[in-house]
Amino acid sequence: MINVRGYAAANAKALLGPFKFERRELRAHDVLIDIIYSGVCHSDIHMARDEWGGSIYPLVPGHEIVGRVSRVGSDVKAFKVGDLAGVGVLVDSCRQCTSCKQGNEQYCEVHLVPTYSGLEMDMKTVTYGGYSTQIVTDENYVLHISDKLSLAGVAPLLCAGITTYSPLRHWKVGKGHKVGVVGLGGLGHMAVKFAASFGAEVTVLSTSDSKQNDAKKLGAHHFVNTKDDAAMKKARNSFDFLLNTVSAPHNINALISLLKVNGTMIMVGISPEDLSLSVSGLISKRKTIAGSMIGGLRETQEMLDYCADKNIVSDVEVIAMKDINEAYERMIKGDVRYRFVIDIATL
Amino acid sequence: MINVRGYAAANAKALLGPFKFERRELRAHDVLIDIIYSGVCHSDIHMARDEWGGSIYPLVPGHEIVGRVSRVGSDVKAFKVGDLAGVGVLVDSCRQCTSCKQGNEQYCEVHLVPTYSGLEMDMKTVTYGGYSTQIVTDENYVLHISDKLSLAGVAPLLCAGITTYSPLRHWKVGKGHKVGVVGLGGLGHMAVKFAASFGAEVTVLSTSDSKQNDAKKLGAHHFVNTKDDAAMKKARNSFDFLLNTVSAPHNINALISLLKVNGTMIMVGISPEDLSLSVSGLISKRKTIAGSMIGGLRETQEMLDYCADKNIVSDVEVIAMKDINEAYERMIKGDVRYRFVIDIATL
Repeated sequence: MINVRGYAAANAKALLGPFKFERRELRAHDVLIDIIYSGVCHSDIHMARDEWGGSIYPLVPGHEIVGRVSRVGSDVKAFKVGDLAGVGVLVDSCRQCTSCKQGNEQYCEVHLVPTYSGLEMDMKTVTYGGYSTQIVTDENYVLHISDKLSLAGVAPLLCAGITTYSPLRHWKVGKGHKVGVVGLGGLGHMAVKFAASFGAEVTVLSTSDSKQNDAKKLGAHHFVNTKDDAAMKKARNSFDFLLNTVSAPHNINALISLLKVNGTMIMVGISPEDLSLSVSGLISKRKTIAGSMIGGLRETQEMLDYCADKNIVSDVEVIAMKDINEAYERMIKGDVRYRFVIDIATL
Repeated sequence: MINVRGYAAANAKALLGPFKFERRELRAHDVLIDIIYSGVCHSDIHMARDEWGGSIYPLVPGHEIVGRVSRVGSDVKAFKVGDLAGVGVLVDSCRQCTSCKQGNEQYCEVHLVPTYSGLEMDMKTVTYGGYSTQIVTDENYVLHISDKLSLAGVAPLLCAGITTYSPLRHWKVGKGHKVGVVGLGGLGHMAVKFAASFGAEVTVLSTSDSKQNDAKKLGAHHFVNTKDDAAMKKARNSFDFLLNTVSAPHNINALISLLKVNGTMIMVGISPEDLSLSVSGLISKRKTIAGSMIGGLRETQEMLDYCADKNIVSDVEVIAMKDINEAYERMIKGDVRYRFVIDIATL
């Protein structure tokens, strides 16, 4: 076994604190990664506090992991010692179902193994995330990371990046499309960068005017304050797509009214409460609401390669491990531009 | 002006009763149709009782109209006296917007003129529907009706038919697809006929076991009682499409759980109350909810021609005009298989 240091929540009410645990000894296809940075995703907070239900304690969060390979299993082909490597939201899946075979492992129809607070395919072994010094992962679920980009800025691509990249690609968003990004946080700021990079005309929709300047700097062409009734009325029936990154309860019917005929709102933020849906708002102009979750391994690699090519990274604030609880409080207040990333050397 | 007899509701609480009113004198492109049958749609009840808001009284319902042309305007090209003709849910639109130009007049972005209880393009003249002896309609919004089919069975095609045909065509439903039809009423029974005719494997989902035999007779291959927890559990992740015809509040999250990865639920019934939506149910398998409303004129004609070719009509119970209020009560109880049609000769 491999001894690892990390930070864990002991239960739903506890702050995160130091935690020692063991990773499995390397199997033939495993890679040992010395973690350099671990991004802090809003879902880490939901999970640490069991806000979606099903959290397993002690819980080591973190699924935006970049580091360097320090050891490889006997049959590993894709990585060698010294390579930069990334691990995202999932570390295994059944590999047999239609979704897995299509490279959509995130929609595995048998069992998806999340990077933390989930069970391995043996349905017994608990997984622990990236707020830790090392991780052992099967090479098929490890990504190659370019050395061209800022490593800290790359970490959030593993979740915030792929979560927004995948639906924009799936729905073929690009030139000629008007796209609204709802919410300008960790996911939203990546959505703006990708949508603009793909050639779409991008509007940020936010409850906070303070985000307006940032929206433009990130590449957005327009800004709408969703609390401004006149601006919302003016924006009606104008968007081909809305990428909705809000993970709190909110009025989706007002957003649906902003879609054009045949328009689609893609949900990537998970509200812990059900939302209220007016069916007539969908029917009257053949509108659609869809959900999308991260992306498959192949698509995640494609996204990382695209980012290396286009020089796209997340805007980050690097923190020390000991500051994680304060970072959570700031995230809840929306006080981060736009992603905290833990420098694991501080652990 | 043309003197017409009909049945109207005087206000939201009133029963329908005899009503005399005038239709406009024929314009150059107008057709005068002597109405033979008028189908009774569930939305007639919602509108007569102002359950969706915005009803205009006195209100003459009816938007599933078949009859025979008795007079034509000076420039009418598409119809001649003696032709069978149909009028559906809309009788005019702006004719200039993108949707109109694409033949999707039902999604007109300027103003849609409903067949009854709406305003003409002049934004003043109130429209009156098919529970009446005659109607005057612009030839561009009139359909050709084959003499091969039972006329009474054709009337409901103008709303129930096109409302289910259009989304099945738009989403290219056919061979190799598993399709669930939720609710077996006026819309549902047409959805079963069309989906089966297009080659899909069709399941009826209903709260009532009494519909099981009918489902099979209409062409469905399977039946699931949505109150049967074990059957619902077994059906999870199995449908490519659900066509949801229910117009009362119901649990859509339970239905979404029945969709496969990338599956789509299409809403065609309009619940008067908002529905409760679990976003995680959409996200975890990239599922979609969409709305669809009737169809355009071109597509409605295509549907009528398809029905003539495949010998598809609605299953109807023909009633006398005076029995309309009793028919409404029976519809609310689900006691009709599957559409009432008014014999206008009884008016």
